[in-house]
Formats: sequence, C-alpha cells, structure tokens
Amino acid sequence: MIQKYPSAILENAVNEFAKLPGIGRKTALRLVLHTLKRTPEEVENLGRAIITLRNEINYCKICHNICDDEICHICGDLSRDTSLVCVVENIKEVMAIENTGQFHGLYHVLGGIISPMDGIGPGDLQIESLIERVDKESVKEIILALSTTMEGDTTNFYIFRKLSGREVKISVIARGIAVGDEIEYADEITLGRSIVNRVDFNDTLKL
Amino acid sequence: MIQKYPSAILENAVNEFAKLPGIGRKTALRLVLHTLKRTPEEVENLGRAIITLRNEINYCKICHNICDDEICHICGDLSRDTSLVCVVENIKEVMAIENTGQFHGLYHVLGGIISPMDGIGPGDLQIESLIERVDKESVKEIILALSTTMEGDTTNFYIFRKLSGREVKISVIARGIAVGDEIEYADEITLGRSIVNRVDFNDTLKL
Repeated sequence: MIQKYPSAILENAVNEFAKLPGIGRKTALRLVLHTLKRTPEEVENLGRAIITLRNEINYCKICHNICDDEICHICGDLSRDTSLVCVVENIKEVMAIENTGQFHGLYHVLGGIISPMDGIGPGDLQIESLIERVDKESVKEIILALSTTMEGDTTNFYIFRKLSGREVKISVIARGIAVGDEIEYADEITLGRSIVNRVDFNDTLKL
Repeated sequence: MIQKYPSAILENAVNEFAKLPGIGRKTALRLVLHTLKRTPEEVENLGRAIITLRNEINYCKICHNICDDEICHICGDLSRDTSLVCVVENIKEVMAIENTGQFHGLYHVLGGIISPMDGIGPGDLQIESLIERVDKESVKEIILALSTTMEGDTTNFYIFRKLSGREVKISVIARGIAVGDEIEYADEITLGRSIVNRVDFNDTLKL
C-alpha cells in the first residue's frame, strides 16, 4: 500500500527513522508523531546526540572498545590483569561480561565475527591487532567469548590457527546448560557437550 | 542491573534513543551501534531530519493536519466536497481514510481525544475550531471517525453536545463485524451492534 504523507518534511523524517534496524514505516510514523509532541529543545538534543555520536566517538587504541579518549577506562585501569585478554564480538558483550563482575582481565573487541553470508571476512575484523597484542604485550591467556554459532566457531578456529606456534594459552567460554534451565528442554548438542565437558563437583563448590 | 557504558557520548545517545516510545535501553544500544556503522553523511541526515521535523513542520490553518505550507493539500484541493467534514484524532487516521479512496470531503484533526486519565481535556483539542468551521463554512455533515473506545465515545458525545442547535448533520462511522472476520470470534458488543444497525441488503450491492 502506497502511503501518501501530507508533508515532505514529515515523509523525510519517516524515511530516516525507517532506516533504523527493526523499525518499519508504521513505527517510524509513530516515532515522528511522538517527536512532534516534544519540545524543540528535547528534539534538538536527540538530533544532536545522534550526530555527535557518529562524529566524535573514539575507539580504544588497545582493545578497540568504544570510548571518549584514546584509551578506554578498562585498558586504563591499572588494577586489571593485563595477562588475560577476552576476545569479544562487540561492545555489548564487553558490557555483559563487565556486569557479571567475574572477569578482571582486558578485552579485545573484534567488531564482528567472520560471516561470509554478510560479506564479513577476517580482514574486516580486529584480528591482526589481536595477534600484534599477543606478540608485543605479555598476554598469557586469550579467552574466546564469541557467539556459540557456526560463525562464532569459525572465528574461534581462525584465531586459534593464527595464534598457533605462539606461547599463549587459548581458552573458550564454557558451553553447557544455562543456569536455571531444565534439562528436558535443553537442545541435544548443548546437553551432549555439557556431559562430555563435565566438571569436578568439588570445583563447583568454590564458586 | 546498572549498565556501565564505556563512553559518555555513547551513553547520551542511548539515553536519547531510549526516550522514544517503545524503545528500551537494549534496543537503544542496538540503534546506537547500528548508527556507528553508518556513514557520517547518513547519520547527519537522520539527525537533521529529526531537528527539521520539529522546527519546520506546519499545521494546516483549516483542518490542523500536518503540512509544509499554510494549508494542506487536502484543504487546498478544489475538487473535494467542502460540505463534508470528517473528524479524526490524528494524521494517521487521515492517511488511513485517504488510503481507502472512499472519502472525498475534508478533515478536521483534533490532535487527540478526551482522556482524563492522560490529562487531555476538550481545551487541549481542536474542538473550538471545529465549531467555528461549522459556523463560518457551509458544512452540511460532520462524520465522527474517532476510536471506538470509551475515550472516543466521550469525545463524540462532547462534540455532539457542542454542535447541538446548529443545522448540521452529525454521523458516526459504522461499527460492526470487520470485513473478513468470522462471526463466532466477534466480541458480543460488536456483534450486538451489528445486528441492531443492520443494513438493507440491497444497499450493500451498490458498494
């Protein structure tokens, strides 16, 4: 159905909102009508925040996390264990892992995972800079914390191969039944892995 | 869970996106990360479209529909029937009715409906200007096309009372079983009304 908008300015704003992921034209129109009900100052703040975001954001020179300065607050934190580097896909995973409070090492943000379907190859990701970090810094262990999908596994294996011959331990986050999940509803692959990779009960008592 | 963002610019953009209706902090972060992957020009276009929208949009002096000029393209269309005015809540309903191709009169956009729960009274809506239109222009019929909710009914009744004593026909859009709906799943009130307001079968053959 062709929608006829009563105003070119309105139509342009709907088009721009609709370019955002997960936002269709109906939602875009709802956002536009909401925008019209807000004060000019509030709307100016939203518009400027978006432009400023794109123009002024920095990426940490060490781990490629998003930050405001040259180096992010995690890489700049002297109390953290620099021998441990956790490889993640994106800033969302950094935030999720930071929220667990269980990790005190540093990160390395790849900026994605290898995905031939989406045209993302190793060259589009921060993999070379990871190898450099391993070569130049005193990294003892690399923890691969990518999605447990085929793309994540491919990326894990690519990094593993690239780092072969170097004196660095490579580990991968544990895969198994999620805490709180019922066994009967777990998928077979996860359940199978969780049996093969079973851990000593004594070790679980320490957590 | 308190989210710690690695950048104040990023956090500000997340906050601004999260002020939009239906967008939570997780979605806002997803929108922000998507924004960072777009070109500066694309992002500038989005930001400017939002600011321009709020600052430069106009409302039609006659029907209060959104437009770019003083008068909207519907009120400015000389081929339309100026004796028929359809009262709607918002621009979305104008677009929906225009898409049916069944209405060739003019509109009057109230800008909402009477809703004491949301603090919206008759004074917040374009009701006085509707009365003025009836008094000054040669309006023969007012079609009330508001939501079939309690708020819509209240607003309908308020307008009906305000227009009492004037020589204008007041009609309301038909309520009944939606085209394509199965009778057994229709709610009782709608089904009851559709029986009470049954129409001559001969009349349906003309559509």
